[in-house]
Amino acid sequence: MATIKDVAKQAGVSIATASRVINNAPHTSQAAVVAVKEAMEKLGYRPNANARALVSKSSNTIGVLVNDVSAPFFGTMVKAIDTIASEQEKQLLIGSGYHNATKERNAINLLINSRCESLVIHSKGMSDSELCDLANEIPGMVLINRVVPGMASRCIALDNKKGSYIATEHLIRNGHKHIGYICSSHNIEDAIDRREGYLDALRDHGIEIREEYIEYGEPDETGGEQAIVNLLAKNIPLTAVATYNDYMAAGSMALLQENGLRIPDDMSVIGFDDGHIARYIYPRLTTIRYPIQAMANEAVKLSLQLVHDENAAQNERKLFMPILIKRSSVSCLR
Amino acid sequence: MATIKDVAKQAGVSIATASRVINNAPHTSQAAVVAVKEAMEKLGYRPNANARALVSKSSNTIGVLVNDVSAPFFGTMVKAIDTIASEQEKQLLIGSGYHNATKERNAINLLINSRCESLVIHSKGMSDSELCDLANEIPGMVLINRVVPGMASRCIALDNKKGSYIATEHLIRNGHKHIGYICSSHNIEDAIDRREGYLDALRDHGIEIREEYIEYGEPDETGGEQAIVNLLAKNIPLTAVATYNDYMAAGSMALLQENGLRIPDDMSVIGFDDGHIARYIYPRLTTIRYPIQAMANEAVKLSLQLVHDENAAQNERKLFMPILIKRSSVSCLR
Repeated sequence: MATIKDVAKQAGVSIATASRVINNAPHTSQAAVVAVKEAMEKLGYRPNANARALVSKSSNTIGVLVNDVSAPFFGTMVKAIDTIASEQEKQLLIGSGYHNATKERNAINLLINSRCESLVIHSKGMSDSELCDLANEIPGMVLINRVVPGMASRCIALDNKKGSYIATEHLIRNGHKHIGYICSSHNIEDAIDRREGYLDALRDHGIEIREEYIEYGEPDETGGEQAIVNLLAKNIPLTAVATYNDYMAAGSMALLQENGLRIPDDMSVIGFDDGHIARYIYPRLTTIRYPIQAMANEAVKLSLQLVHDENAAQNERKLFMPILIKRSSVSCLR
Repeated sequence: MATIKDVAKQAGVSIATASRVINNAPHTSQAAVVAVKEAMEKLGYRPNANARALVSKSSNTIGVLVNDVSAPFFGTMVKAIDTIASEQEKQLLIGSGYHNATKERNAINLLINSRCESLVIHSKGMSDSELCDLANEIPGMVLINRVVPGMASRCIALDNKKGSYIATEHLIRNGHKHIGYICSSHNIEDAIDRREGYLDALRDHGIEIREEYIEYGEPDETGGEQAIVNLLAKNIPLTAVATYNDYMAAGSMALLQENGLRIPDDMSVIGFDDGHIARYIYPRLTTIRYPIQAMANEAVKLSLQLVHDENAAQNERKLFMPILIKRSSVSCLR
């Protein structure tokens, strides 16, 4: 591969001049620009992004930490960030943390060591104080889907409790009183908040809370299947279930239908996220929209601003609001 | 942020010594190692990945080009690559090409300019000859899901035609004679090959081929819905449809069920890919397994080998084989 030395020699200029042309520095003669560009073309010279990163003290990449890139939710988040990144001719460096503190820490360190100045971090494993320390070190670090006191103005998050409240209230307004809840077994804020929203809605509408109406599982379709199996086994008079997310809803719906229960006639099901699948399972899933695209957009824009202006984060930041999306998986009992 | 100068000063050694310790070079005294490591810890010094990449002439990242990271198929592929990468303490740099030659070219150039030595490329837009030129330049470049003559030993691909053949034959063996085909409207090899497999199976079993039995759409659930609407509108006596992928199958199934058609009693549907959704739509989807995880594993391992040994690619490389996965969306007419 050609080096900058080869380019300079071919162009008949000094290495310093060749370097200035390659890095679009001022004070280069038009003749030098033409000669160097011709030489670059002729030799197939590729400017080295690592070298440029050293000169500019930053790479041209945005670092993103997700839970697991193979989960469609994070695919959507990464795509939203990639869209903004491409517009600015930046690339993404992606790490997976799998909701585990050590893995998250290692992945973030790799991103920082690669001189990503902008970081959009989805962390559930690391402590608030550790994240605050990192945020102090890296001005362009923004958290998504978590609120950490002390850096709240750099946190882009959703009102999860409100989302589950809306979902449960939608079932209650359709005449349901025996409402189960299928909860994530992961011990993260999202799971606790969504369960809390379900309980609050029942309380506010004077419906008795029964622990046996709640089951837990992995936040995927298999977990949803197992949770609904456990609920059905208890022989309780459920007419509806609210779920932690669309995958758990889809898993429980497949199991219910295999057992001859019609949705929504025999059992209403409501999801959370409004991911891709909500529209193409049958019956189409009534669910809560998690505006991850809008949130990822805001996160990456804020992160890019913060690199140049540490005051870009407003003091007050509002939580994003979840919205009810009505489709066909909830029946009206009245 | 602390520099290597600060570390050297704190440790009481020369910058050259500090550098040797940081880069695990030989010929460093134990005392220097201890002093430098203590200094690094004390000052919170982070070795600069860009600087190390310059020294070693390569970055520690594997470049991956996908069509669209938000499609679950590519999420699965990226995760498989990430698993191998993490084992080797490498990171991923991910670009999206959206099946477009210009976007693919730009994304690959960014990966190369970032000194990714290993590249796993899913390209559908660029020409064979351009990919061959790139492969000659970059020894660690491997293609996934495409066979390019001239670099076939560095191509990891699936026998798409065989997959569709197996799917269609499964329908025929269950007594179906009026079999529609829902095809991708993208003009890529995969679409052409899968359609060819469907036609071959009909031919081999003496079933008349009718162009009106084939409809085209975007390779997603919406495209599947539109294609099945177009097939139904023609009022032809279909009892089964084979589809380009699981998303198109899911979209057509939701539409069929909304119109009161029972699956598989009134219409059998078979997918392709065996992605996540195949197991959690109802009825569970009979489909063709695309072993993308195994293929991605092989691609990244080959790519890492090729960096050190250009002869690592065997001369002969077999296509991966698709497999029939029976679930509940195909009925037996006999």
